[in-house]
Amino acid sequence: MCPKLPLLLVLFLYYAITSLGSDPDPVQDFCIPSTGIAACKNSSAATVEDFVFSGIKFPGKFSETGLAATSVNVNIFPGLNILGMSFVRADFEVGGINMPHFHPRATEIAFVLEGKIYSGFVDTENRIFAKVIEKGEVMVFPKGLLHFQMNVGDMPATILGSFDSQNPGLVRIPNAVFGSGIEEKLLEKAFGLNSKEIAKLRKRFAPH
Amino acid sequence: MCPKLPLLLVLFLYYAITSLGSDPDPVQDFCIPSTGIAACKNSSAATVEDFVFSGIKFPGKFSETGLAATSVNVNIFPGLNILGMSFVRADFEVGGINMPHFHPRATEIAFVLEGKIYSGFVDTENRIFAKVIEKGEVMVFPKGLLHFQMNVGDMPATILGSFDSQNPGLVRIPNAVFGSGIEEKLLEKAFGLNSKEIAKLRKRFAPH
Amino acid sequence: MCPKLPLLLVLFLYYAITSLGSDPDPVQDFCIPSTGIAACKNSSAATVEDFVFSGIKFPGKFSETGLAATSVNVNIFPGLNILGMSFVRADFEVGGINMPHFHPRATEIAFVLEGKIYSGFVDTENRIFAKVIEKGEVMVFPKGLLHFQMNVGDMPATILGSFDSQNPGLVRIPNAVFGSGIEEKLLEKAFGLNSKEIAKLRKRFAPH
Amino acid sequence: MCPKLPLLLVLFLYYAITSLGSDPDPVQDFCIPSTGIAACKNSSAATVEDFVFSGIKFPGKFSETGLAATSVNVNIFPGLNILGMSFVRADFEVGGINMPHFHPRATEIAFVLEGKIYSGFVDTENRIFAKVIEKGEVMVFPKGLLHFQMNVGDMPATILGSFDSQNPGLVRIPNAVFGSGIEEKLLEKAFGLNSKEIAKLRKRFAPH
Amino acid sequence: MCPKLPLLLVLFLYYAITSLGSDPDPVQDFCIPSTGIAACKNSSAATVEDFVFSGIKFPGKFSETGLAATSVNVNIFPGLNILGMSFVRADFEVGGINMPHFHPRATEIAFVLEGKIYSGFVDTENRIFAKVIEKGEVMVFPKGLLHFQMNVGDMPATILGSFDSQNPGLVRIPNAVFGSGIEEKLLEKAFGLNSKEIAKLRKRFAPH
Amino acid sequence: MCPKLPLLLVLFLYYAITSLGSDPDPVQDFCIPSTGIAACKNSSAATVEDFVFSGIKFPGKFSETGLAATSVNVNIFPGLNILGMSFVRADFEVGGINMPHFHPRATEIAFVLEGKIYSGFVDTENRIFAKVIEKGEVMVFPKGLLHFQMNVGDMPATILGSFDSQNPGLVRIPNAVFGSGIEEKLLEKAFGLNSKEIAKLRKRFAPH
Repeated sequence: MCPKLPLLLVLFLYYAITSLGSDPDPVQDFCIPSTGIAACKNSSAATVEDFVFSGIKFPGKFSETGLAATSVNVNIFPGLNILGMSFVRADFEVGGINMPHFHPRATEIAFVLEGKIYSGFVDTENRIFAKVIEKGEVMVFPKGLLHFQMNVGDMPATILGSFDSQNPGLVRIPNAVFGSGIEEKLLEKAFGLNSKEIAKLRKRFAPH
Repeated sequence: MCPKLPLLLVLFLYYAITSLGSDPDPVQDFCIPSTGIAACKNSSAATVEDFVFSGIKFPGKFSETGLAATSVNVNIFPGLNILGMSFVRADFEVGGINMPHFHPRATEIAFVLEGKIYSGFVDTENRIFAKVIEKGEVMVFPKGLLHFQMNVGDMPATILGSFDSQNPGLVRIPNAVFGSGIEEKLLEKAFGLNSKEIAKLRKRFAPH
Repeated sequence: MCPKLPLLLVLFLYYAITSLGSDPDPVQDFCIPSTGIAACKNSSAATVEDFVFSGIKFPGKFSETGLAATSVNVNIFPGLNILGMSFVRADFEVGGINMPHFHPRATEIAFVLEGKIYSGFVDTENRIFAKVIEKGEVMVFPKGLLHFQMNVGDMPATILGSFDSQNPGLVRIPNAVFGSGIEEKLLEKAFGLNSKEIAKLRKRFAPH
Repeated sequence: MCPKLPLLLVLFLYYAITSLGSDPDPVQDFCIPSTGIAACKNSSAATVEDFVFSGIKFPGKFSETGLAATSVNVNIFPGLNILGMSFVRADFEVGGINMPHFHPRATEIAFVLEGKIYSGFVDTENRIFAKVIEKGEVMVFPKGLLHFQMNVGDMPATILGSFDSQNPGLVRIPNAVFGSGIEEKLLEKAFGLNSKEIAKLRKRFAPH
Repeated sequence: MCPKLPLLLVLFLYYAITSLGSDPDPVQDFCIPSTGIAACKNSSAATVEDFVFSGIKFPGKFSETGLAATSVNVNIFPGLNILGMSFVRADFEVGGINMPHFHPRATEIAFVLEGKIYSGFVDTENRIFAKVIEKGEVMVFPKGLLHFQMNVGDMPATILGSFDSQNPGLVRIPNAVFGSGIEEKLLEKAFGLNSKEIAKLRKRFAPH
Repeated sequence: MCPKLPLLLVLFLYYAITSLGSDPDPVQDFCIPSTGIAACKNSSAATVEDFVFSGIKFPGKFSETGLAATSVNVNIFPGLNILGMSFVRADFEVGGINMPHFHPRATEIAFVLEGKIYSGFVDTENRIFAKVIEKGEVMVFPKGLLHFQMNVGDMPATILGSFDSQNPGLVRIPNAVFGSGIEEKLLEKAFGLNSKEIAKLRKRFAPH
């Protein structure tokens, strides 16, 4: 049993790092998660590579809705740990959408790198703030509010988003509502749909 | 024009109070919003009535979905200002539901005062955590996550919720998604519904 | 010696969880303390039971002052970890009191479930804010301020309190001042009591 | 009526400044409260005098318990506004005490400038941490915990304290408990004293 | 005098908005600074234009060091108010530099839009973390640490930076040290330079 | 291999304690880092010695610039862990300086214990706020801003500084800029110095 301990400790560190840190007010310069016994790499072992991310040079794999989004949070880029920020690259096919979603733990600033994007959010009074933004424009989505995008140009489009949390979280509305297994009866009443309509939606968004 | 200034200042204070305070770490004991010239009532003018709320002794008005919810945040109960908390009373008719929703700025702790409530939340991996809870039981909904409730007993039910924000915000999914005016095309693609189905949903949740 | 390590790790985790987390701004949905090697349960192993608490359906054991208080913080209900909230159920016999006390790390919102409670707090200018509140009423005690309660009705009374910290802490004034071993001379001068009077108080509140 | 407005605005600013700021994470370098129309002095009008305090070169006036404490918070030294810190000078006569008290919003670091001070705090488990500290030594009192001091040397003593809040607040236990007007009955039960004993204490600590 | 009051109030609001808000944990969805009497625009008067910024489509004016940086904080883009984020566009001529500087209130994430940039930071142990990063790569500069950039390619380069503060602040080392008027004697000793060398540096960085 | 695990765990704890805690809002009274298996000492094993620091009774070793500074942060005085504060004693020889520096994570309050000190800071608009302060005076340096001191009296001088972070960090400008290895070309352009001048500065501040 002893020989297994180091492995377990590595696993432990994976969770410890992503579990206990908190976005505000770090108490040291940085803390690169370690694969060794310590929670952070010894700071003298940190290298510049720990602070550089090269994985969003190109679009990711496109989904059915014409979106390729690469979320770069602390789980993907450990150097972000305790630094309070993370980011995302989102590429859109013509007509592609980023479905209504929200980030429970962050504001987002979205820069349009290419294309024309219908982009907006809904506040807690159900007011919509949306318009088509173009290359070079920037839109901000307040913390925790529902937002969405659609490529309305005739060329692919790309957005670069930044967050003020190392792990903002992502809740895609259709999947969370219809793909998680909430009681059918409750959904029927909530959306005013009949059981067949709900069943269809649940089927579409059921996890594979 | 001058005589109008005092009125304008009162209006100003209404917004100032609810706008600039921030949940964490107050720098004084309390700050009761003033209807006079100062942002807070002179603290010596505060009375115990400023810290007591008597408006949730009885259920509010029931909605079509069988819910009567009274959210008591800083706008309703000004004494909560800078104190970092607020609360809600929710009454359910038999079969009544609290539709899928989330609070962008708070965790919620829900106490069952009466009845049997199917209650749950969905995390950012689309996993559901739901069960029927009964009188005397307590469930916690993590900050910003989508949650919902349904009275599954054969009697009315009541829940008392608390939040760790003076103004947690509330986003009801069906209203925010279908009642805010998001582009029909985007919604069709997001939910895999046709234009007629979306139109029906938009009509149902359109603001009156 | 190796066989003991797993046990030590479990102990470690118990302290790690309750030690390093911080109330504001979690960086993940939740973190159920683990009894295994990781700081948090693997999130896919979390269940709804982790978020439901059933231990305050009934009053606890009554103290000499006629109070039965069950504080439910992260140590009792681990699911609260990193969620920034906790709660308490307090039952009062007729005439029972909740002695002057404060919570160093939280505001409290107190709901009267049953009865008539004389309830109040003292601000940092020594002003008292107190009155009798009844079933269905709510009182807020600002963060860190001294507060107290007494059942002034002719029936048992019950209060449900919520806190904006996973571990608000509790300092009961009589016990902290007279039961902790502060130098007698200092107490005499502070309260203007003679050595016999102080000795009597120290004896009453000495830990058993 | 118009001519009075500027005065009212000045009053407003006094409250606005001390009311709405929050200790964590300023969003500018500094904000010197203004006596003019703006909440902060125009930053170009700030001078070095705004950041220097010369009022604790000498002890203040001694109280009956042999203590002269000058608390320098944002109300006394406006330059501290939004900076998250404040301080206190405390001088002790021989045998003088700083009665049991706590600061609801700050940790304190106490430096002994002169003398021998019995100094300590009580944690939320009623454990005491106390000892005699001398010139050049430093003791830390954790946020919100009850603490106290007594000059046990044969010379006057002086302490310099720092806080991590611009307005830490101060609750002196004897005054808050016996001088604020809490119901006599409640105090009798809390301390196990009879009505005569409580009356004596209430009289001693009644505000003048 | 009265007719001037509205103007003064507008000025007041300008300062109030940028003075009292605090980065963490907003208590409402957003707060667009108002040019009217209220601190925030009435939220129903906010429009999508308040959340979109179009001013960094093109480079700004280049400085002597070959840098054109447009910092977009809450003073430039009021919609960022209380949202906790801001951003910057920096264009570099061939060989252009962004001199050693730091942001006292934010971490920065820098995306390379075009070119090859020597980019790095220095931690509090004086260790450097620097390398050449290229189009599509991202580097993070931890909160408050000194950092710098230089276009080492043979083409113009562009960086897009994001911050986790609505007003991160910017301290350019050469200007702050040699252009602010610090006593010559102190600078001589600090840098081990003679009075002539210091005079030359002070002259170069003196404000115009 | 097993016998080494306990040692590794001790090392782990050293890093865990100083890595994951966060300045704001502790969730317990204190957390003394443990040399055993737990992150914090069992709180019942904490003693008063954990909260008292006796190492700044006398000046430290003087540097070439006539400064002896002893920074007492959580690494030196573990009892500060999670308490949000730390401190420093700085002694100055006649003419001694504390070179331009900043603390990335804290405001500083500086008390003059002895002597006459030219003391100041530079804000983000490059304005200087400096003057000579004397025994008994206090100056505040806002969070993250560059500041400096010089003993301008004819006697040794001493300052006591306090910080609102358990680990404020320290960046000495000359060392960070010229002693860290930043590209010579970049420094030449930033300071307008030639390669020989930069080489001289780099040599002086190169780490030994």
